[in-house]
Amino acid sequence: MDAEIISVGTEIVLGQIVNTNAPFLARQLATLGITADRQLAIPDRRDLMVKAIRVAWRRSPLVFVCGGLGPTADDVTLAAVAEAVGTGLTIDQDHWRWIQGTFAQRHKPMMPENIQQAKYLAGGQPLANAVGLALGSWYEQDDHRLIVLPGPPREFTPMVTQEVMPRLTKLVGRQVQITSRTLNFFGRPESQLMDEIAAVTANLDGVTITSYVQPDAIQVRMTVRDQPRAIADQLLDAAQAAIIKRESPFFFGVGDDCRLAKVVVDQLRDRGWRVTAAESLTGGMFQSTICSVPGASNVFDGGLVTYAARAKEQLLGIDHQVIAEHGVVSAQTAAQMAEKSRDKLGVDVGLGFTGVAGPDSLEGQPAGTVWVGLAIAGRPTTTKLLHLGAYRGRQAVRRQSVQAGLQMLYQALSK
Amino acid sequence: MDAEIISVGTEIVLGQIVNTNAPFLARQLATLGITADRQLAIPDRRDLMVKAIRVAWRRSPLVFVCGGLGPTADDVTLAAVAEAVGTGLTIDQDHWRWIQGTFAQRHKPMMPENIQQAKYLAGGQPLANAVGLALGSWYEQDDHRLIVLPGPPREFTPMVTQEVMPRLTKLVGRQVQITSRTLNFFGRPESQLMDEIAAVTANLDGVTITSYVQPDAIQVRMTVRDQPRAIADQLLDAAQAAIIKRESPFFFGVGDDCRLAKVVVDQLRDRGWRVTAAESLTGGMFQSTICSVPGASNVFDGGLVTYAARAKEQLLGIDHQVIAEHGVVSAQTAAQMAEKSRDKLGVDVGLGFTGVAGPDSLEGQPAGTVWVGLAIAGRPTTTKLLHLGAYRGRQAVRRQSVQAGLQMLYQALSK
Repeated sequence: MDAEIISVGTEIVLGQIVNTNAPFLARQLATLGITADRQLAIPDRRDLMVKAIRVAWRRSPLVFVCGGLGPTADDVTLAAVAEAVGTGLTIDQDHWRWIQGTFAQRHKPMMPENIQQAKYLAGGQPLANAVGLALGSWYEQDDHRLIVLPGPPREFTPMVTQEVMPRLTKLVGRQVQITSRTLNFFGRPESQLMDEIAAVTANLDGVTITSYVQPDAIQVRMTVRDQPRAIADQLLDAAQAAIIKRESPFFFGVGDDCRLAKVVVDQLRDRGWRVTAAESLTGGMFQSTICSVPGASNVFDGGLVTYAARAKEQLLGIDHQVIAEHGVVSAQTAAQMAEKSRDKLGVDVGLGFTGVAGPDSLEGQPAGTVWVGLAIAGRPTTTKLLHLGAYRGRQAVRRQSVQAGLQMLYQALSK
Repeated sequence: MDAEIISVGTEIVLGQIVNTNAPFLARQLATLGITADRQLAIPDRRDLMVKAIRVAWRRSPLVFVCGGLGPTADDVTLAAVAEAVGTGLTIDQDHWRWIQGTFAQRHKPMMPENIQQAKYLAGGQPLANAVGLALGSWYEQDDHRLIVLPGPPREFTPMVTQEVMPRLTKLVGRQVQITSRTLNFFGRPESQLMDEIAAVTANLDGVTITSYVQPDAIQVRMTVRDQPRAIADQLLDAAQAAIIKRESPFFFGVGDDCRLAKVVVDQLRDRGWRVTAAESLTGGMFQSTICSVPGASNVFDGGLVTYAARAKEQLLGIDHQVIAEHGVVSAQTAAQMAEKSRDKLGVDVGLGFTGVAGPDSLEGQPAGTVWVGLAIAGRPTTTKLLHLGAYRGRQAVRRQSVQAGLQMLYQALSK
């Protein structure tokens, strides 16, 4: 099936934001064998939208219109779509009551215009939005389907996976069967990982392997087309086994939504262990990442941010002598930070992060030089030296340091 | 002048790569007052390309076709463009000799197909490519112009700035002048902010005002077209003054890259003050946000993450009685966390964050209920209750809590 995607937004056509919705949707559609061969971006201008939607609606069996569902005067998408396909708008009364209730609960004044966000295409179905106010629409006529979705990616993304994909799968699922599985890796350059994976899967016919670099992982997606589920699963099992055999130190989980922090929190909980940290350059980001996982309270009580040397001595009791002799950015300091944070909180595992976030160097060490310490009760304390690419910026150095700490912890817990 | 951008690439329409060329080009065009109102992405399919280019070429005075200039069989852009506009292809003999010399010098085998990359549209001009093999094309007919550029961003970007922009500037540069300025706001729903701004700028002709919701701010962009710089600046000054007079409690800075954390760090440094925090639900995110600003060491030594009640008592010395009586999520606990963190670090300012990140409720309070405390030496401690939209998820509640803390601090420092 051919599809078209029309992205609406003046900020997109002015280049003020990069359109990530269309590629996300295209990747999802590809798993069903649907190709969006025409992807158009236009501004929030009703005349252009009506023209473009009319052409697409006549031409293609599946049209997506994304963006411009806000409550302000320049959000005219829904009216333009209605005009283009020749229908009206309906208010979803339940959703309108929910919007009113949400504003009341948050003690925020609601605008009369917010009722726009409770409307959908008359004769169609509303699509639920779990994280935002505006409904989407699903509209059908003569085997043509038009889907309207909001623009903010944090609303768009879950609506595609939760509302649109199940309906489309029902529609086309039995024609093309795509079975896929995603493996997550860390600590390996993408090109090297993929070369190694290509070598160990060369004799496996029928499995297509693609990679996708996420900020905190490399995702490797294995896909089988046009095979019954049982056979596809066998092929994926074989590929997964061959890949993990080669790359096991770098593999941490299966699934598109798999996150290393969650894997680590689950591992700690299973062992009944608690974790803490003393953070210098990361400034609390490791602990914040642990706390981002629901249920973090099972494994985390609290910890310390020791940014300045003074705080390392005062809050943690790091030996002044250690810092004077080895420097703040040293294996010795990282190890003491890990051990003393663990002891101070009285828990099983402590991590220490110290290094040069940049842009300036420190103690004669260049930006991107980072030591991570890991202290586990009853095991020798370990440290790791990182040389991170400071050209990527201060935030990237800090984020990669946190990931390196999670990786050390994951590998220690997997033993 | 209206323009259209046609991006060619199967990997774009499959979502395997994100198209950053079109937004880059759009931003460049905007500086000349040219808006690319239609931006299309299509695969490397000659039939689709010919159709799409024909329509654009008839309709618009300026058409860009980007990508598909490689030497392989699926790179058919140049042939498709030639067919669509009704011309042929010419070999640039100088460039062809240069390609041959380049391969010889690099001891790489050249393919016969590489001659494709020395071709340009007959009757037009070749555009030089300083970092890649493929020429671009500039083609004119009856006041319509079509420009062909290669797809790799490291070739595309310099060709736009070095080859295309000088020619376009000559064409339109002295006719249209765009001057713009961005104001940053927090703590106001976008629709309400824009309604209020529309009211106070209603009598200011010539200034266009648009808004854009960033994760941590609402950006309001004021734009003046077709005015000399001095007059444009006067108009922007007048609009800015009117807007800030109305919205001053919510305004925090000028510029696309302005971030509240940086503004706060600068304010603290100017006063010679240092800040710390004790964080429960935010788990270190406030301190990590402060540390994300280069030069944070001028205002921040360290602080505490006190996630569990046990850590609040043990690390900070919060009175057990206060928690028992008022609960962990209370004004009293937030105030004590702020004061005791400030005293423990011996600094000027302390913040306390305590609340329910979700998804579950806590102490009978729903997810999204958050107290922030702010303790400044010599001033009475203040607290603020937030009711955040928990439907947006745990991370959003935590991020908004951090922003609320920064806002309280900004407002206190602005007094």
